[in-house]
Amino acid sequence: MFSDKHKTAGVAYPQGFTAAGVRAGIKKNGNLDVALIYTERTAAVAGVFTQNLVAAAPVHLSKIVVGTGTAHAIVANAGCANACTGEQGVRDAEKMAQVAADALGCRQDDVIVASTGLIGSYLPMDKMEAGIKDAAQKLSKDGSVNAGNAIITTDTYSKACATEIEIGGKEIRFGAIAKGSGMICPSMATMLCFITTDADIDQNLLQEALRDANKVSFNMITVDGDMSTNDSVVVLANGAAGNKKIVTKDTDYEKFSDTLKTICIELAKRIAADGEGATKFLTINVTGAKSFEDAKQVGMAVANSPLCKTAFFGENFNPGRVICAVGYSGVQISPSEVVIKFGGVPVYADGVMPDVDKDAMKKILAEHDIVIDVDINEGNDAATIYTSDLSYRYIAVNAEYVS
Amino acid sequence: MFSDKHKTAGVAYPQGFTAAGVRAGIKKNGNLDVALIYTERTAAVAGVFTQNLVAAAPVHLSKIVVGTGTAHAIVANAGCANACTGEQGVRDAEKMAQVAADALGCRQDDVIVASTGLIGSYLPMDKMEAGIKDAAQKLSKDGSVNAGNAIITTDTYSKACATEIEIGGKEIRFGAIAKGSGMICPSMATMLCFITTDADIDQNLLQEALRDANKVSFNMITVDGDMSTNDSVVVLANGAAGNKKIVTKDTDYEKFSDTLKTICIELAKRIAADGEGATKFLTINVTGAKSFEDAKQVGMAVANSPLCKTAFFGENFNPGRVICAVGYSGVQISPSEVVIKFGGVPVYADGVMPDVDKDAMKKILAEHDIVIDVDINEGNDAATIYTSDLSYRYIAVNAEYVS
Repeated sequence: MFSDKHKTAGVAYPQGFTAAGVRAGIKKNGNLDVALIYTERTAAVAGVFTQNLVAAAPVHLSKIVVGTGTAHAIVANAGCANACTGEQGVRDAEKMAQVAADALGCRQDDVIVASTGLIGSYLPMDKMEAGIKDAAQKLSKDGSVNAGNAIITTDTYSKACATEIEIGGKEIRFGAIAKGSGMICPSMATMLCFITTDADIDQNLLQEALRDANKVSFNMITVDGDMSTNDSVVVLANGAAGNKKIVTKDTDYEKFSDTLKTICIELAKRIAADGEGATKFLTINVTGAKSFEDAKQVGMAVANSPLCKTAFFGENFNPGRVICAVGYSGVQISPSEVVIKFGGVPVYADGVMPDVDKDAMKKILAEHDIVIDVDINEGNDAATIYTSDLSYRYIAVNAEYVS
Repeated sequence: MFSDKHKTAGVAYPQGFTAAGVRAGIKKNGNLDVALIYTERTAAVAGVFTQNLVAAAPVHLSKIVVGTGTAHAIVANAGCANACTGEQGVRDAEKMAQVAADALGCRQDDVIVASTGLIGSYLPMDKMEAGIKDAAQKLSKDGSVNAGNAIITTDTYSKACATEIEIGGKEIRFGAIAKGSGMICPSMATMLCFITTDADIDQNLLQEALRDANKVSFNMITVDGDMSTNDSVVVLANGAAGNKKIVTKDTDYEKFSDTLKTICIELAKRIAADGEGATKFLTINVTGAKSFEDAKQVGMAVANSPLCKTAFFGENFNPGRVICAVGYSGVQISPSEVVIKFGGVPVYADGVMPDVDKDAMKKILAEHDIVIDVDINEGNDAATIYTSDLSYRYIAVNAEYVS
């Protein structure tokens, strides 16, 4: 579904979309740092944003754009979060939108704005302005790779995907780019992710589909439990595919919604796998819960436990830390009813830790991808959390990351 | 108040108490690993224990002993937590109490039991039995240092203190030993701490004084946000001081209660300062909250944030991570009303980060002890949290800690 060709096409894969990423000199290392995504055809827009009360200026602005229902462009930068920047930050975010609008021939409130990087410093607006103008010149169907690279910070690779489905005989395309990889935590609209599609869909349904997709994807990953000030997931749907407009929750909507979910889960998994300093990708399946929320709470307790994360980093067999986290998650459980498996092998059941084949377990723990099953046997609901381990490199990245 | 002489005297400082610590071969490194504290005179006993639903066998047993209202001894071991050990674990904990009771000439339900170390393995009961008998032989007024060393695991030093107050013309002595230093987190009765006093006090008042002291001490520290299966704080009061028994909440009770609080805060701070891999001791004062709980929640969000902790480890000036954690703490705040100070210097106010003297700030961040003030300006309540930073050594300790 997500071939390398698709990855390269990214957000410019759907009809009518172009993208660019340029060097504006905002990142100190001189890498690409300003991204632009554009559709001449007016797109329905939906967005979910950080629930952090200390939200960055671009988040406030983009919420207003989503409120208008339509947009033509997304402008984003890495290297400076434009958060905790007061009135000047708001003016700078507005200026970003205005410069993009002028270069593209649309209105300021047609432009979604996003920033990521260090909190508390001001955007260098002269560099920003030149960068946005440069990006507008460079917009192309091949620009998604650069756009993807322009929004990453401590990510070790850019996350992108694209795919297509058929609705009513028409090919509907989707493309997306996303970035992690610190300040990643649940119960919010996580990090930056920009999704494009040429589907024709009612804006309210688009927002609902995004909210549903976000709930089982970006809100189910955690790297360090820290919720960012800048998280934004935005989808633009420009209708260029010419499908019969999706206006009710029919099978077309289901198909659209499922695809959006698949894309969001795929990118969320990649963000977790590329968590700062990650050497492992951990999937935590919690089953037997009384509600989705309970299952998520149990899974998040395990996923955010530094002791569990360091044990997996060290490839140590330490199921005690997992059951310990389950026990303090705040969800009512009965210790003797809980069953925990690593890589399908029971490691905790009936209140004790059964003997395991040490060689087989060593192999499971040596894998990059490890599945942890936690059945709490209290009900029928389930949730899956994705996370990374906690390694020396997380400390290195975060003790030394200043800009 | 807590001199080195006092520290050495520890739990054997109050009249009528003796202590011992011996090598039983439970710790793989051959260090002291079985501790015994004894009072021939019957002591009122109070205890607070982990709220983790997966509580260890000794915790269940000790709660029963506290329920009887009196005790004569505490037996504890490090190197094995006797947690997730099912029926056999319960029998082993009972056996520990029985062996101690036989050696001391008291009843099994006169003996508090505690264990700390790896979760999921069974106690080597032959070694344990020999160790407890050995410890009973070695009980002395000089035994507290060994007892303190016998309960530590990844701690880099033993925590002990002692002091005295006067109540109604009588000298009342207090002594305590405690251990950390991983799986340390709020909202529970944290880690192991054993307190002795020769005060004569009603058992219900003793329990209330301990609960109050615990609330502002052990429940206000966090190292890694992980809540242990074995945390226990127990106080024995044997009445040997001969004071008029404290039976109401009079000024004598206040004096007693204040001293207990001071001891618990002192030991809690030392546990936080000796958190696994700690290179910094962070005090987070949250003021201007609508309630103590709100203040604590804001402080804990900062204290448990890996991004904040690594920034302090790296001596990086990064107030953005602190205001970010305040913003996602779940407590209602207004970003422009919050004032944050590092070492007394404002670093966030009016929604932005004011310019700071970089050299002065560098000096503040280079200190071992750093005070972070967070005034959320919403009300009049306050709370103080103690924590450590997050360093490479935390990873080393926990990725490699198996026994």
